[in-house]
Amino acid sequence: MSDLDLIKERLRQFASERDWEKFHTAKNLAMALSGEAGELVSEFQWLTPEEGQNLSPEQLKDVEMEIADVAIYLVRLADILGIDILEAVMEKISINEGRFKPNS
Amino acid sequence: MSDLDLIKERLRQFASERDWEKFHTAKNLAMALSGEAGELVSEFQWLTPEEGQNLSPEQLKDVEMEIADVAIYLVRLADILGIDILEAVMEKISINEGRFKPNS
Amino acid sequence: MSDLDLIKERLRQFASERDWEKFHTAKNLAMALSGEAGELVSEFQWLTPEEGQNLSPEQLKDVEMEIADVAIYLVRLADILGIDILEAVMEKISINEGRFKPNS
Amino acid sequence: MSDLDLIKERLRQFASERDWEKFHTAKNLAMALSGEAGELVSEFQWLTPEEGQNLSPEQLKDVEMEIADVAIYLVRLADILGIDILEAVMEKISINEGRFKPNS
Repeated sequence: MSDLDLIKERLRQFASERDWEKFHTAKNLAMALSGEAGELVSEFQWLTPEEGQNLSPEQLKDVEMEIADVAIYLVRLADILGIDILEAVMEKISINEGRFKPNS
Repeated sequence: MSDLDLIKERLRQFASERDWEKFHTAKNLAMALSGEAGELVSEFQWLTPEEGQNLSPEQLKDVEMEIADVAIYLVRLADILGIDILEAVMEKISINEGRFKPNS
Repeated sequence: MSDLDLIKERLRQFASERDWEKFHTAKNLAMALSGEAGELVSEFQWLTPEEGQNLSPEQLKDVEMEIADVAIYLVRLADILGIDILEAVMEKISINEGRFKPNS
Repeated sequence: MSDLDLIKERLRQFASERDWEKFHTAKNLAMALSGEAGELVSEFQWLTPEEGQNLSPEQLKDVEMEIADVAIYLVRLADILGIDILEAVMEKISINEGRFKPNS
């Protein structure tokens, strides 16, 4: 099973065991993702670009857990809507490749 | 290769071909992710929860492309910081399982 | 009339004339504000801190309009909930003054 | 002095007394605002639209303090960039009035 499917399955089970499916509408999950993205960005807000590249182990752990939170809601939202993230990303990268030509 | 690694490799190549690595600091990527999360949430802002569950094909495509954008910056940020998303997610779900007990 | 009240009154009229009050729930307005904050942050995402301090007239105008969008949803959300922004800010600054002592 | 100027002046003093001006670049303040918008949206993420309209006193207080945080960074960002929020909002509302015609 692929990484993304593995996460998807585990999140389905997690929600099901807690009877949380009723909260997991697309609208609510998009909000939750946005909230977690806000927590992620706040980890870096007072850091210089250089400090952001050289996080302490504690900072890195905090950022890792925020990245996990964003990933969790992203996978869950895609699942609810029947969207395949890998396919979506590959399509979007192809579009971007057409828009932004490589340096020669 | 796992799907998250596949995305990671393709994004490395995309950035390298355009000489964009210099823009891809952790601070900047966290901002870009937050901006895309804002675009994603704005897709749902005036929809009722029910409408959000029953998107038109056009709306669904827009949401799919926004999900792709968030995923792209999430994978790229994790890559820059040496974070393994699958590991991070599994650790965070374990933590959440301890915090929120399943219904009996 | 204070400037915040002036904005509030004009937004009430704007929503009323378009029959948009039904869309302006607190949940939806919080989402809209978050979406606009994402647009604002995206104006700065690839700029160095120095470039962000020295915007071109075009960039500054774009940022000004994004700041306006955030302000619009902030004032509208506070209005819907009966929150006085000036009072709220003054209370929050007092809290912060207690938390973060000035340098001597 | 207008509400917005009052807030602006108090925030200038607050930053100055703590020697925080160096952190208050436009880029950093936009990030901080985005982070606070994330906290604000997260207050509503699991609420139904109806619940969001009928907050408990505790919820309302939390939302009020999040609104204050967004307002603080918004006013501070505008100040750093020399943007007049009232002017910006009035211009943006005029633009929106042209774009979205009132119901007859």
